[in-house]
Amino acid sequence: MVGIIMGSDSDLPIMQEAIDILEGFDIQIEVDIVSAHRTPEKLVDYSKNAHLRGIKVIIAGAGGAAHLPGMVASMSPLPIIGVPIKSRNSIDGWDSVLSILQMPGGVPVATVALDGAKNAGILAAQIIGTSDKCVLDKIIAYKEGLKLKVEQASERVKK
Amino acid sequence: MVGIIMGSDSDLPIMQEAIDILEGFDIQIEVDIVSAHRTPEKLVDYSKNAHLRGIKVIIAGAGGAAHLPGMVASMSPLPIIGVPIKSRNSIDGWDSVLSILQMPGGVPVATVALDGAKNAGILAAQIIGTSDKCVLDKIIAYKEGLKLKVEQASERVKK
Amino acid sequence: MVGIIMGSDSDLPIMQEAIDILEGFDIQIEVDIVSAHRTPEKLVDYSKNAHLRGIKVIIAGAGGAAHLPGMVASMSPLPIIGVPIKSRNSIDGWDSVLSILQMPGGVPVATVALDGAKNAGILAAQIIGTSDKCVLDKIIAYKEGLKLKVEQASERVKK
Amino acid sequence: MVGIIMGSDSDLPIMQEAIDILEGFDIQIEVDIVSAHRTPEKLVDYSKNAHLRGIKVIIAGAGGAAHLPGMVASMSPLPIIGVPIKSRNSIDGWDSVLSILQMPGGVPVATVALDGAKNAGILAAQIIGTSDKCVLDKIIAYKEGLKLKVEQASERVKK
Amino acid sequence: MVGIIMGSDSDLPIMQEAIDILEGFDIQIEVDIVSAHRTPEKLVDYSKNAHLRGIKVIIAGAGGAAHLPGMVASMSPLPIIGVPIKSRNSIDGWDSVLSILQMPGGVPVATVALDGAKNAGILAAQIIGTSDKCVLDKIIAYKEGLKLKVEQASERVKK
Amino acid sequence: MVGIIMGSDSDLPIMQEAIDILEGFDIQIEVDIVSAHRTPEKLVDYSKNAHLRGIKVIIAGAGGAAHLPGMVASMSPLPIIGVPIKSRNSIDGWDSVLSILQMPGGVPVATVALDGAKNAGILAAQIIGTSDKCVLDKIIAYKEGLKLKVEQASERVKK
Amino acid sequence: MVGIIMGSDSDLPIMQEAIDILEGFDIQIEVDIVSAHRTPEKLVDYSKNAHLRGIKVIIAGAGGAAHLPGMVASMSPLPIIGVPIKSRNSIDGWDSVLSILQMPGGVPVATVALDGAKNAGILAAQIIGTSDKCVLDKIIAYKEGLKLKVEQASERVKK
Amino acid sequence: MVGIIMGSDSDLPIMQEAIDILEGFDIQIEVDIVSAHRTPEKLVDYSKNAHLRGIKVIIAGAGGAAHLPGMVASMSPLPIIGVPIKSRNSIDGWDSVLSILQMPGGVPVATVALDGAKNAGILAAQIIGTSDKCVLDKIIAYKEGLKLKVEQASERVKK
Repeated sequence: MVGIIMGSDSDLPIMQEAIDILEGFDIQIEVDIVSAHRTPEKLVDYSKNAHLRGIKVIIAGAGGAAHLPGMVASMSPLPIIGVPIKSRNSIDGWDSVLSILQMPGGVPVATVALDGAKNAGILAAQIIGTSDKCVLDKIIAYKEGLKLKVEQASERVKK
Repeated sequence: MVGIIMGSDSDLPIMQEAIDILEGFDIQIEVDIVSAHRTPEKLVDYSKNAHLRGIKVIIAGAGGAAHLPGMVASMSPLPIIGVPIKSRNSIDGWDSVLSILQMPGGVPVATVALDGAKNAGILAAQIIGTSDKCVLDKIIAYKEGLKLKVEQASERVKK
Repeated sequence: MVGIIMGSDSDLPIMQEAIDILEGFDIQIEVDIVSAHRTPEKLVDYSKNAHLRGIKVIIAGAGGAAHLPGMVASMSPLPIIGVPIKSRNSIDGWDSVLSILQMPGGVPVATVALDGAKNAGILAAQIIGTSDKCVLDKIIAYKEGLKLKVEQASERVKK
Repeated sequence: MVGIIMGSDSDLPIMQEAIDILEGFDIQIEVDIVSAHRTPEKLVDYSKNAHLRGIKVIIAGAGGAAHLPGMVASMSPLPIIGVPIKSRNSIDGWDSVLSILQMPGGVPVATVALDGAKNAGILAAQIIGTSDKCVLDKIIAYKEGLKLKVEQASERVKK
Repeated sequence: MVGIIMGSDSDLPIMQEAIDILEGFDIQIEVDIVSAHRTPEKLVDYSKNAHLRGIKVIIAGAGGAAHLPGMVASMSPLPIIGVPIKSRNSIDGWDSVLSILQMPGGVPVATVALDGAKNAGILAAQIIGTSDKCVLDKIIAYKEGLKLKVEQASERVKK
Repeated sequence: MVGIIMGSDSDLPIMQEAIDILEGFDIQIEVDIVSAHRTPEKLVDYSKNAHLRGIKVIIAGAGGAAHLPGMVASMSPLPIIGVPIKSRNSIDGWDSVLSILQMPGGVPVATVALDGAKNAGILAAQIIGTSDKCVLDKIIAYKEGLKLKVEQASERVKK
Repeated sequence: MVGIIMGSDSDLPIMQEAIDILEGFDIQIEVDIVSAHRTPEKLVDYSKNAHLRGIKVIIAGAGGAAHLPGMVASMSPLPIIGVPIKSRNSIDGWDSVLSILQMPGGVPVATVALDGAKNAGILAAQIIGTSDKCVLDKIIAYKEGLKLKVEQASERVKK
Repeated sequence: MVGIIMGSDSDLPIMQEAIDILEGFDIQIEVDIVSAHRTPEKLVDYSKNAHLRGIKVIIAGAGGAAHLPGMVASMSPLPIIGVPIKSRNSIDGWDSVLSILQMPGGVPVATVALDGAKNAGILAAQIIGTSDKCVLDKIIAYKEGLKLKVEQASERVKK
């Protein structure tokens, strides 16, 4: 249901957070390496066919001059979530953020925070949740869990 | 089906592009002014109840220290799309971009480009399209239209 | 008299400097965790009632897309001091600084330097000092102490 | 009760917003030009004596390498509010913001947004309000007024 | 011999400088609109075949999240020159510069200055000049011309 | 055939990647230290004569206020590839990037990513490849190799 | 006594402020156009001989990738004052500032503010003043004049 | 003859490079700690009297919102060299650089690179050298030494 791709397997430690959160929501995922710059044919193939294979949302992570999320968005009608990754030689992450976020009119990428793969997973679940009451309820429960952790921290700090 | 809110009516000229694109896709919208900093009670009420009123996606536009999208995201289980607006006194738009994009783990905002309300509208349609075949087809047609315009420009340039 | 809140207990090592300085001035403090994004109801409750409970100044620390100080400011008539924190995944602290500093007209946050919790504590004391001669005198003495340390360093360097 | 100073009379159009807001709150003000770089003796004299003359809060506006707020803060025990001004030749306002905000430990400046003199005025009123119930009530009323304007804009947009 | 492409015909006024300089060097050019995000199939076709059609160097101009130069580079063995364009809604040109410059190891783009289409043209000529003595001589003469203009300006200033 | 120069031998670990890649392509190289700021006469001599000695492309790496690539470009008719190096005391690499990239009209430098010496080597090979079918074929093969590595990573991730 | 050079006569309107201030101090000046990138031989000649011709200080203004001040500094034993100019196509002036300021150890450039030619003139006078009592007295008088203007503005504002 | 001051003894490891270089040129120095924010009276006293005590040039190093160099410049007729220091909590050094560099018209600070104390020392020597032939000769010799080191590195690299 959710496709998770990244430009290089060196991005996997960051992207793992998206995998974990979606598995926690019992949402089916498919993980692959698709490099905009090194496997452009695979990029085209993946982007054009994902929605035909039953994928509903794509999460794409990339660093530096990060073209993967935007290029998938140019060829797929699905919502694409972009995760800017602070790779080696990145200029403090600005390159990844701007080359994913600043897409031209007509081709949006839903960008999350730098290295924010966890939030990409939650956002994908929220999108699934717009038509799946069961997933929506899990998100509501997840948010309650966040609240609980803060309340426990609050108790600790007060002591 | 799609809620569009903004922090001030001075944001309306930018946000109008989201309204126009969604009306072009025949998707029902609801537009309102909700200010995180000036009407916090309305913000709470809006955010907690939007999904109960049948809204599927929320687009929130704001400028400067732009807290509206993130605060709605903190209280709603729906996917929230944030539009950073380059308001008067903004530091070149960086403030709007960073205060919408850099959300903490657990509370995503799907951020689009600076002043990118048009893309926010398309992204909302893509999210609706994950469960509405008719909208998905319109998005595919829309993308074909983009291609056509480039081809026409290509013809003009070659002459 | 001074409320000190932060978005997460991971901010406590930084915020401890505000606690220490205010305890050094014998000003009564109250410390808690209030997350704008994970406990929005607590945020509303805290902000609306702090001045009714006798709090005079609120210090709020947060990192990334840091909405806590601004959201408290939107609901409280008290002076709010914001401490931008350079959290994990922050883009060099710029996100925290801009999302606290660049508040819209009508809702100020008194922003201090990145990770500047110590100065937040001193500023809170200075605000208390506007109506408490005893605290004002302690601030004057504190500044004399700063001078003394520089003079001692000056002596060491000259040798 | 509130001293308002600025580095040059070219800053007056921006700083006028602080004057207007404080006059609207019926708070007594005193306005002067004090240049850190061109009248350093006046700077010393002003800073050391303001609290002896009954001033409770100082608002200082300056642009470029803006040293006025920080230098006043170094010599006065009062709370100092700094207004970064985007002057001619400023590098997009970054110079003003950083040279006011990033004060060293021990010497805080309560910094507001770029060109945010209006918020400086409100913050000064909030500080006065910590010991003046009448001013506190005016701030609460002012915030109600902000809400009302948003509600009116909301009505207009819905039509 | 030199292919000049751009993402939109709104980029033509900037890219015209590359056209002019290459025509001045009597180097054959071919101009087209190829949008990475709106005509991805054309992008693939253009990139894979340019070197087979006798093109030696490609100049690609694009703004915002500018993926055109990098995507052409991913599919063509030719040297690709990227021109970052400061488009409408660009964040001061940083997005264009970083999304063209910061290419990952293996896929270079020869990036020139923001809006630097003229230099892209000269660089293309220099590349042609590495195997064409006649073009090399024209570049040497061009540089002599630059010198002459400065000498004339020098004369005017001294008077 | 390709000249590789750098401002200091402390740049050698970065520049080694250009050396390695060109040696891998069996392209003849010549490596030297030429400092714009410390050996200006050598700079002039090198720049004016490189093309007379049979050099076809020059790769110049430098950090901080990096003038070497631009100054060579001012005196040589050859294509100059600039490698911005993140040296000690660099402001996050911005100084190197901007002082190499932002060359005035008439004097291009083909800039690659921060610390992107590997890409500088590939770009030099691509330039040689415009007139050397054998090198062009090696580049095509190199790109196939990149693809293969991604496919292997893809297999690993799927397992 | 003071040499004033700039990369292009388009820089003259900015550099005129240096000319005016030095003429106001009755210090002898010599103005010329010397382009690092277009007249490198003149650059070498100028830099190596300025001190032999009786010049004591050199002011060099340039924009974009501004190499003129640093290159003069590499070949002259005199103090070099660099004026970063915000030229057309500059990225908000950052390129000029960083490529003049961030010189490597061994080769300083005394950098003044963006477009700060007036201050370059004053700094040159201060350098002359270290060995010319008459010029030193004029600087002291000049500073008194600055103070007077602020005092007059102060009078106007108080009224 | 050269006064070297810094805002805190934690700046000494950086400023030591200025001390070392001036001692290497046999120029008399005087080192002290003068904090703009913690010892403002000493700042005034130092700045007003340095030229009367025979000091010819002042080097001032400071970090964060670095007001020391500019404030000394406001009260002394001498040339002031500012060294921006990347202190703890600095935002990547930008605060120090901009608050020293961007001085208003009338009050220059000769700014060197971030942590560039060595260059501050050389610049001070160059200023002394404008009226001291012996120091000028030492600078010429120093520059020859720089060249020699590059030549030795060149030899090593060629092997």
